[in-house]
Amino acid sequence: MIKKNFASDNYAGVHEAILQSLYEANNDSAPAYGGDQHTAKAIEKFREYFGKDAQVFFVFNGTGANVTSLSALTHSYQAIICAASAHIQLDECGAPEKLTGSKLLLTQTEDGKLTPEHIAHHLQRVGDQHHVQPKVISISQSTEYGTLYQVEEIKALADFAHQHQLYLHMDGARISNAAASLQLNFTEFTKEAGIDVLSFGGTKNGMMMGEAVVFLNPSLANHYQYIRKQSMQLASKMRFIAAQFSALLTNDLWRHNAAHANAMATLLANSLKTIPGVTITKKVEANAIFAILPRHVIHALQQRFHFYVWNEIKNEVRLMTSFNTLEAEVEEFIVELKKLI
Amino acid sequence: MIKKNFASDNYAGVHEAILQSLYEANNDSAPAYGGDQHTAKAIEKFREYFGKDAQVFFVFNGTGANVTSLSALTHSYQAIICAASAHIQLDECGAPEKLTGSKLLLTQTEDGKLTPEHIAHHLQRVGDQHHVQPKVISISQSTEYGTLYQVEEIKALADFAHQHQLYLHMDGARISNAAASLQLNFTEFTKEAGIDVLSFGGTKNGMMMGEAVVFLNPSLANHYQYIRKQSMQLASKMRFIAAQFSALLTNDLWRHNAAHANAMATLLANSLKTIPGVTITKKVEANAIFAILPRHVIHALQQRFHFYVWNEIKNEVRLMTSFNTLEAEVEEFIVELKKLI
Amino acid sequence: MIKKNFASDNYAGVHEAILQSLYEANNDSAPAYGGDQHTAKAIEKFREYFGKDAQVFFVFNGTGANVTSLSALTHSYQAIICAASAHIQLDECGAPEKLTGSKLLLTQTEDGKLTPEHIAHHLQRVGDQHHVQPKVISISQSTEYGTLYQVEEIKALADFAHQHQLYLHMDGARISNAAASLQLNFTEFTKEAGIDVLSFGGTKNGMMMGEAVVFLNPSLANHYQYIRKQSMQLASKMRFIAAQFSALLTNDLWRHNAAHANAMATLLANSLKTIPGVTITKKVEANAIFAILPRHVIHALQQRFHFYVWNEIKNEVRLMTSFNTLEAEVEEFIVELKKLI
Amino acid sequence: MIKKNFASDNYAGVHEAILQSLYEANNDSAPAYGGDQHTAKAIEKFREYFGKDAQVFFVFNGTGANVTSLSALTHSYQAIICAASAHIQLDECGAPEKLTGSKLLLTQTEDGKLTPEHIAHHLQRVGDQHHVQPKVISISQSTEYGTLYQVEEIKALADFAHQHQLYLHMDGARISNAAASLQLNFTEFTKEAGIDVLSFGGTKNGMMMGEAVVFLNPSLANHYQYIRKQSMQLASKMRFIAAQFSALLTNDLWRHNAAHANAMATLLANSLKTIPGVTITKKVEANAIFAILPRHVIHALQQRFHFYVWNEIKNEVRLMTSFNTLEAEVEEFIVELKKLI
Repeated sequence: MIKKNFASDNYAGVHEAILQSLYEANNDSAPAYGGDQHTAKAIEKFREYFGKDAQVFFVFNGTGANVTSLSALTHSYQAIICAASAHIQLDECGAPEKLTGSKLLLTQTEDGKLTPEHIAHHLQRVGDQHHVQPKVISISQSTEYGTLYQVEEIKALADFAHQHQLYLHMDGARISNAAASLQLNFTEFTKEAGIDVLSFGGTKNGMMMGEAVVFLNPSLANHYQYIRKQSMQLASKMRFIAAQFSALLTNDLWRHNAAHANAMATLLANSLKTIPGVTITKKVEANAIFAILPRHVIHALQQRFHFYVWNEIKNEVRLMTSFNTLEAEVEEFIVELKKLI
Repeated sequence: MIKKNFASDNYAGVHEAILQSLYEANNDSAPAYGGDQHTAKAIEKFREYFGKDAQVFFVFNGTGANVTSLSALTHSYQAIICAASAHIQLDECGAPEKLTGSKLLLTQTEDGKLTPEHIAHHLQRVGDQHHVQPKVISISQSTEYGTLYQVEEIKALADFAHQHQLYLHMDGARISNAAASLQLNFTEFTKEAGIDVLSFGGTKNGMMMGEAVVFLNPSLANHYQYIRKQSMQLASKMRFIAAQFSALLTNDLWRHNAAHANAMATLLANSLKTIPGVTITKKVEANAIFAILPRHVIHALQQRFHFYVWNEIKNEVRLMTSFNTLEAEVEEFIVELKKLI
Repeated sequence: MIKKNFASDNYAGVHEAILQSLYEANNDSAPAYGGDQHTAKAIEKFREYFGKDAQVFFVFNGTGANVTSLSALTHSYQAIICAASAHIQLDECGAPEKLTGSKLLLTQTEDGKLTPEHIAHHLQRVGDQHHVQPKVISISQSTEYGTLYQVEEIKALADFAHQHQLYLHMDGARISNAAASLQLNFTEFTKEAGIDVLSFGGTKNGMMMGEAVVFLNPSLANHYQYIRKQSMQLASKMRFIAAQFSALLTNDLWRHNAAHANAMATLLANSLKTIPGVTITKKVEANAIFAILPRHVIHALQQRFHFYVWNEIKNEVRLMTSFNTLEAEVEEFIVELKKLI
Repeated sequence: MIKKNFASDNYAGVHEAILQSLYEANNDSAPAYGGDQHTAKAIEKFREYFGKDAQVFFVFNGTGANVTSLSALTHSYQAIICAASAHIQLDECGAPEKLTGSKLLLTQTEDGKLTPEHIAHHLQRVGDQHHVQPKVISISQSTEYGTLYQVEEIKALADFAHQHQLYLHMDGARISNAAASLQLNFTEFTKEAGIDVLSFGGTKNGMMMGEAVVFLNPSLANHYQYIRKQSMQLASKMRFIAAQFSALLTNDLWRHNAAHANAMATLLANSLKTIPGVTITKKVEANAIFAILPRHVIHALQQRFHFYVWNEIKNEVRLMTSFNTLEAEVEEFIVELKKLI
């Protein structure tokens, strides 16, 4: 029996429109390293969303997008402020430190979201040569807890950042889930809210592989091409990342996929709430659910469903939905859970 | 008019059997990061060629394969001996130094091939704390000049390396072209010849993207999974790299593709040799031709064909053939060249 | 008027016996980079304390000692567990991350001291390729708060470390203050307690400049000479660091200097305790005092005495005594403080 | 018997005026990390030579001066052009690559000196993202072969550098020997010739330890304090480096010491030239002599004199004189050599 996937949106496969786009991009030889028409077209697609000045670059994966973005913004003696739950802190095996040489300055949060108040203390030693110098605030949208920043919250962080000569970076591995949930266009909570550089996720929203680094502050992109190459993130047959993005950004496929994943999470959360002994621990705003389950059911559930135990001690699990999650799978999960309880 | 490609084997698209394999791998959700059946199957394919002990890991691109391999073999105070023409020296934007911290020790060669005699002088300061300590010899097969190491030449380097406590790494971005030309199985000029770690190329032989790092000395792989992740080379939907390799390594597709590219190079070279004013400058053993053309024809040819001028001063160009190069394209190139001369 | 120093033990000058030793080491030419008799002699002095197997290397400064030690113990994908108050975290401008590539995993503590219970949670993701892999626990003795680990506390950490294949590093920038206060020989709370590598401080105990890296687990030193050189910590005229250590380790000068500094701290603390409105916030066990002073006196006091405000919000200051702190200076401080209050 | 030193100018001890200055700097406590009067005074001394705009920083050693300078000038994807014989290439155990992440681009030279013609080819791939981007030219004055750049030669390199948006760095580990030999003030062949950043050597000219980084293009120093600290080159008791420089730059001690070393080299070279079977291989312009000796005498000579065999195959040795080389030692060397021949 194949287990159903509530483990991660990267367990999902590739949306068929994206596969089709790959197929069509394969019609002939084409210049490598992004000198082709497919790449030019995909960049234009991004600029429809983010404006003509946006500098757009494709990379292989989310860690690559984050780390090369941060490399473009920092010297090694500078520091990156982020939530203690950030992907760059917990899930990139130290790639940010290795590649940028910079320290991450952490803030503990309940919901994975930073506020100016949270992070002000990290600026106490600005100008002190013994201490790393903060240069970037990095936030995730949606967060690793499936929560969302509202536009005003991002603006407050951007204002704070820019007042203190910091840049504001967004890890948008799940940016489409955020946009779909907020019912906003990308630009409203990124460029217009003051984000300087954005990691725009594709893989978790139905692509095969590929992410984009979008410089909304275009002057920061001046040397990025070299950083990307030196960071081993330059694809030779780049058209095959570009073509995926072209499909994703056509006919609102990105929104369709993300909205579906979000809807499945809402459905699942609403059902979970009705089950005695189950406690949802984080606000469900995108496609992730964090919930405490009775200890004895977790192992049994994992025989039929892929999902992660987030906190062994608290019996907290993470359930993630995807563009291809079926309503029937959600129902099956609930049925099984009720049976076990 | 679309220009014909003699620029690089990475201008070529994706072989249809590989596209088909991608399509088939997309049938359902599957564990991420290599915990899936497609990845397991592809690793088994590799082991059919390289033996059961081979430790096989998939990465995104050739620079990633080379640099993560070398990271697994070195400390930052150690050094990597390579040809001055090596891809790791000329074409990776300093990624080896950035990621490993190590210095590359160069040897000038005519044909891109190292010999023990060439490199012995780099060992003069072993044990001297002021000087980097050689730890790896890295060779390319086929070389960046399209030339080949014979088995005995590799064995001589491996013996030399191991006598001096060095490892022997092979950049096999075009290993299939080498195997096809040498009419050998991979293992005969890698594992059996003493190679410790191999970057096994897929992209330049008809894949969409993806390379493999193959540890033939399996003890060297102990920590490689962390190096790969920290180096941003861990694909989340890894099955889509694995599935490409499965196709490439099935029914000798790798050999079919590479042999075709090689044959087209031979055809082109043989025709070039008959043209007055054209001099072939490197032995044509795989799918690259280096040739001096009359200066006045180069620019005109570039209007219809993609290719690189290798040496402006000498009017030396590089012509590269691919799995999808057509005989008609070769003929067209020759006709056009003769016309221009 | 020259301000009196309660800022740091590195505001103090050089003990005259150490200056004399420098003078005597200057009698002739001598091999550079440690190949001289002064260096050999100083290493022997260390071995009298730490045993014949100890591998001893001299470096320029404390950050150099810590970072090169940690470099010898880690790969970049590994992590270093330390207190949030550790010098390597707060006061080395990110040198550990820059040089080792490793992440620091922090634990908040009141007294600057780690326990196995504190840090056990950092081992939850051992074996998970997405997360850095802990490899070293680094403790400071005395701590940055002037507190001390008892022998049993160090042994407990060493046992924990070794059970989990971790190394235990000690930042001993003020190790002499610790030894003097604990009335122990160095070896009792380092080698015998299970420390693997030690940064042995000289500068803060009356030397001009110079620290030692002492490998108590000598196999870890195999490649250290290259790490030291590549980390720019190899002194050419090394005899002039060595000669300082020879003096420091002769006739218990180290203990004499440290005990004096400690005694001055005790004297100062005892007087402070009697002053209304003054609260000592950390246990005074070595040569540092942390105290909350009435806000209005701090600025006035700083006109006559150098000291640091540790926490602006809490009006907490740090007062540090040195080998050359005079009893009269302590009294003057107390008199002035009482006057201001 | 103590061997006489012709090995290196860092085998020499400390000039007595410098020791005296250290003694005098030890009169009291003083702020650490350069916030003291001794440091301020030494910086003023430098500005007497290099102008009021010069930004001056003290570090521990020559490798530290070079690497932190180069770090201030480069991003990791950029490259540093230098002679194949440069100290940064041969004698710093890869510290430049490790700390800057940058590649060194080498030029083979007979005399250790670069010219614009030599290095122009390194600019062929400017703008090509696959290749490192040259950003600095680094020259040594005097060179590792004891040769000198004339002012016009430096100006030519500076013009070339600045035309191509490169910086010009000088490794002046032996800058005093150069100035004394050229009979110029420092500024004439550095600032006025177009040098951007200078590593100013102290240790090899009679100091105990310490070098200075002098930014003649002061805007390049903006972040240097953090680079120095993160590179572990910030001395806590900095006054004891500063005081040495104050002495060196007072009453032309630097020139006195260097001129003496140079004179001893000239004396030795002139004598060597008269001995049959001895060939001087490099122009003797500062305090180094490279000479081919009869093979059978080398080992015997090394029983009584420290010196390095530079090239085993050619029987070429390096003889280095110092501020404390005695005329009698030179004569003794010649007598012994003649006896052995």
